[in-house]
Amino acid sequence: MVAELEELTGPGQVAPGGSPEAKDDYTHDEALGLTPVTPQAVVWPEDAAQTSRIVEWANARSVPLTARGSGTGLAGACIPRPDGVVVAFDRMHTIVEIDTANQVAVVQPGVTLQQLDEATGREGLVYPVFPGEQSASLGGNVATNAGGMRAVKYGVTRHQVLGLQAVLGTGEMIRTGGKFVKATAGYDLTQLIIGSEGTLALVTEAVLRLYPRPTHTATVLAPFASLPACTGTVPDLIHTGVGPLMIEYIDVVTMAALAGTGDLELGVPPAVQEQAVAYLVVVLESHHEDRLQEDTATVAELLAGAGALDIYVLPAAAGAQLISARERAFWVAKAAGADDIIDVVVPRADIAPFMEEVSALAAATSSWVSGCGHAGDGNVHMSVFQADPQKRSEVIEGILRAGVGRGGAISGEHGIGIGKRKYLAAIEDPAKLDLWRRIKTAFDPNNVLNPGAIFE
Amino acid sequence: MVAELEELTGPGQVAPGGSPEAKDDYTHDEALGLTPVTPQAVVWPEDAAQTSRIVEWANARSVPLTARGSGTGLAGACIPRPDGVVVAFDRMHTIVEIDTANQVAVVQPGVTLQQLDEATGREGLVYPVFPGEQSASLGGNVATNAGGMRAVKYGVTRHQVLGLQAVLGTGEMIRTGGKFVKATAGYDLTQLIIGSEGTLALVTEAVLRLYPRPTHTATVLAPFASLPACTGTVPDLIHTGVGPLMIEYIDVVTMAALAGTGDLELGVPPAVQEQAVAYLVVVLESHHEDRLQEDTATVAELLAGAGALDIYVLPAAAGAQLISARERAFWVAKAAGADDIIDVVVPRADIAPFMEEVSALAAATSSWVSGCGHAGDGNVHMSVFQADPQKRSEVIEGILRAGVGRGGAISGEHGIGIGKRKYLAAIEDPAKLDLWRRIKTAFDPNNVLNPGAIFE
Repeated sequence: MVAELEELTGPGQVAPGGSPEAKDDYTHDEALGLTPVTPQAVVWPEDAAQTSRIVEWANARSVPLTARGSGTGLAGACIPRPDGVVVAFDRMHTIVEIDTANQVAVVQPGVTLQQLDEATGREGLVYPVFPGEQSASLGGNVATNAGGMRAVKYGVTRHQVLGLQAVLGTGEMIRTGGKFVKATAGYDLTQLIIGSEGTLALVTEAVLRLYPRPTHTATVLAPFASLPACTGTVPDLIHTGVGPLMIEYIDVVTMAALAGTGDLELGVPPAVQEQAVAYLVVVLESHHEDRLQEDTATVAELLAGAGALDIYVLPAAAGAQLISARERAFWVAKAAGADDIIDVVVPRADIAPFMEEVSALAAATSSWVSGCGHAGDGNVHMSVFQADPQKRSEVIEGILRAGVGRGGAISGEHGIGIGKRKYLAAIEDPAKLDLWRRIKTAFDPNNVLNPGAIFE
Repeated sequence: MVAELEELTGPGQVAPGGSPEAKDDYTHDEALGLTPVTPQAVVWPEDAAQTSRIVEWANARSVPLTARGSGTGLAGACIPRPDGVVVAFDRMHTIVEIDTANQVAVVQPGVTLQQLDEATGREGLVYPVFPGEQSASLGGNVATNAGGMRAVKYGVTRHQVLGLQAVLGTGEMIRTGGKFVKATAGYDLTQLIIGSEGTLALVTEAVLRLYPRPTHTATVLAPFASLPACTGTVPDLIHTGVGPLMIEYIDVVTMAALAGTGDLELGVPPAVQEQAVAYLVVVLESHHEDRLQEDTATVAELLAGAGALDIYVLPAAAGAQLISARERAFWVAKAAGADDIIDVVVPRADIAPFMEEVSALAAATSSWVSGCGHAGDGNVHMSVFQADPQKRSEVIEGILRAGVGRGGAISGEHGIGIGKRKYLAAIEDPAKLDLWRRIKTAFDPNNVLNPGAIFE
C-alpha cells in the first residue's frame, strides 16, 4: 500500500502505520474512552488532484479512508480502520485567498483556526466560529459542523461555509457553492457534506464567510441560586435584540474546577460563591463603545431583575480569562477523570427542565454528571463520571433520549463519529437511518470514506 | 384517480383537472413563457397523514405528484404533468405555534408570508425573509429557498428553517432538525430538502427561526452616473459593519418604469435624474433611533465620498413606497412585455463587470436586458426582451454562463424548475448532475415527486 500510495503522491508523503512518522497521534482523536487504532498507512496529500487519486485508488482497492485534520474531534470520527489509510490534511494548510471585497476566505482543509484568525485580523475581518480549540483545522470543522461559544450570534460552521471543493467516494472532484450567500440551482451539496464526518466526501477547499471584526467587547458574569433562574433568563436576553456574542452557563462544580486550574480572578466574594449554583456569562461585542455600554447596562438590568445574586461587569483581562477557562472545560473534565462527555442540544427554553431529568437519571445510576454549556443555543455539555461501562451506557442513553424527547438532538457540535453511533442507532428514526445510508451510497458507492462513522 | 384520492382524503378534497374547482391557477405559476398544463386531478390534503397516504398511493401507482403552495414561483416548478396530480397545500394553512421563548414559529406549508408576518408582529417578532410577494406560502418558500431584499442582513430561507416534517417519495414521513440552531447528528436532511423544488419530499410542517422585530428603519437613495460606481460601493458598505437590511441597485430604465406605475415621489430633481444611470437603495433598521441616525449618516457619507450624484434620506412613507415599488419590479417587467426573467448570482464585487458582459451579450443578439437586483448578495435580476425563442435561449445561456464563469450560480432564488433546466443541463458539471440524480433516487425511488423539475 505504501509503495502504491507513494506513486500516487510523492516521496515522503506516505508512512506505514506504526512508523515514527505515522506516530500515535494518527491513531485517535480527543474522544474519551475509545481505543486507538493503527492504520495500514498515513498519506499526506499536497493538493486536490493527489487527494482525488488517493480516493480513486481506495475505491478500486476497497480500502477504507479516514480523513484527518488536527485530530481535535471529540467523537472518534477520525479513528482509522485497521485495514485502512489515514488521509492527513496537515500539509494542505494554505490560505488560498482573503478576498476583502467579497468578505470571504478560501482555505485548504489543513488551515487552523489560529492561522485563519491571524490572517483575517490583519484585514479587520473575522471568521466567527470559535469551537474553543484554535489548533483545530477548518477541514475538521467542516466535517463536524463545529460550533462553539459564538454560535448564538453567528451560527455555526454550517452558516459560514459558502462553498466547497470536495472529492466523492469515486474520486470525482466537484465544486459546490461559491463566493455568494444564496443560490437555488440544484440540491445543496455544500450543506450535505458539512457535518458528514468524512463519510460523504473529502473536502479539499472551503469558501468561508467573513465579517467585519468588532472592536469592543464586554463580559457580564451573574451568579444565580438555581439553574432554572439562571437559564430562564436566556429567552429574555435574546428577546432584547442586543444580540449577545455568547451566552454561557457554567455549573458551580465546573466553575470551581475552572477556578482551580488557573489564576481566574472574577471578584466574586465568598458569600456570593456559597449561594451560587449556576453562573451565566454574557459577552457582548460592538463596533461602538457607547452602544456596547448601553447594551451591557440592558443586560445587567435584565439579569438583576431576574434574580441574579449579583452582577459583575468584568474588566477586559478578567473577561478574556474567564472565556479562556471556559474553553478549557473539556481538559478540566478530562483531568478530573470524566469517563465520557456528551453535548445534547435542546430548545433553549428547556435547559432547566432537561437538566432536572439529567440529575434524576444520574442519581438513579449513581453516576455523577456536571454541566456547562452554550445556553443561548440550548447546547449542554456534560461530563459523565461513571466507571462501569454498562451503567455509563445506560445513563448516557437515558440523557440522550431525554434530550431527543424534548425535541432536541443527540449532539449539538461534537458529532456522532464511532463514539456515539450506538446511541444514534438506538434512538434515531429507522426511516432516516435508511435514507442516510442511501445518501451515503450516492456519494460513496463502495463505502470507502470513513466506513462505520455515524452509522454501521 | 379522483375516486381513489377521495378515499385517501375525504369528500370535497379532490377535483378532476380542468373542473371549476381545479381552476386555471393550478396549471401554472408566474414563470414567463411556459405552457400551462392541466393535471389529472388536484388534491387538497388537510394534514401530514393524508399527504403521506397520497404519496404512498402515487408511489404504488407511479403517478407524478407536483406540490403547490401559492403558485407565485418564477421557474415553473409547480407546473404539473398531464398524467399527474397537483398536491395543493392551500388548506394546510395553520400556524401551529409561535413559540416566543424559543423564538420559533411552527407552520404548515400553506401558511402565507402575510399571515405569518401578522402573527409574529403581534409578539414583537419577525420572520425576516421577504421575497417580495407576501401571498407566497412558506411551503413554496422552502421548496425554492426563497430570498429577497433582506437576505444581505438575514440570509435566505435556508438560514431560517430549523426543522421540517416531510414525506419522502415512498410515503414515509420523517422529522428533521427542531427548535435549535445547531446539531451534528447525521446528515442534514433539512438543508437538502430546502431548495429541492418538490423533487425530494413534500414538506408538511416547518420550524422557522424568528428575530426581535426592529422598531426603526431608514432608507437612503443614491443616484450614480455609472453602474460600476454604484455597485462598487457595496463591499465598502458591508465592511462598515452597519449591517444594512437591504442593499438594492435599480437601473435607470427599471427606475423609470417603477416611477411610472404609481405615485412614487422620491424628490430626485430632473437634473439629477438625467445624469443618473443606476440607483443604490440602502435600508437600515435598528432597535434604537439614535443608532439608526448614526448609521444612516455613516452610509450617506460613504456614498457621497464614493461619487453619488446626490443622497436622499427618504421620509418613512417614501422609503416604504420605493421598496414596495421595487417588489413590483417583476410585474412591471411582465407588463412591459419581458420575454423571460433570470436571477443570476455572482460574487458581489463582480456585479459591474458581469453587467458589462451582459450588455455585450445583449447587443450581440439585438436583445434588450434591463436589470435591478439584490446588490448586497450579488444577485442580479434581469428582464430579457427578445421575442425570437432561439436568440432568447442564446442570450440567456450566454448570460448564465458568464455568471457561472465568475464563480456564480444560475439562479440566486427563483430556482430551476422546468423553465431553466435546459440551461442547467448545458452548464452544470455532469458529475454533480449524476450525483443529484442518485440523491433523488435515495429519496424518491420511483420518481413520483415533481419528475422533470431541476433535471430530466
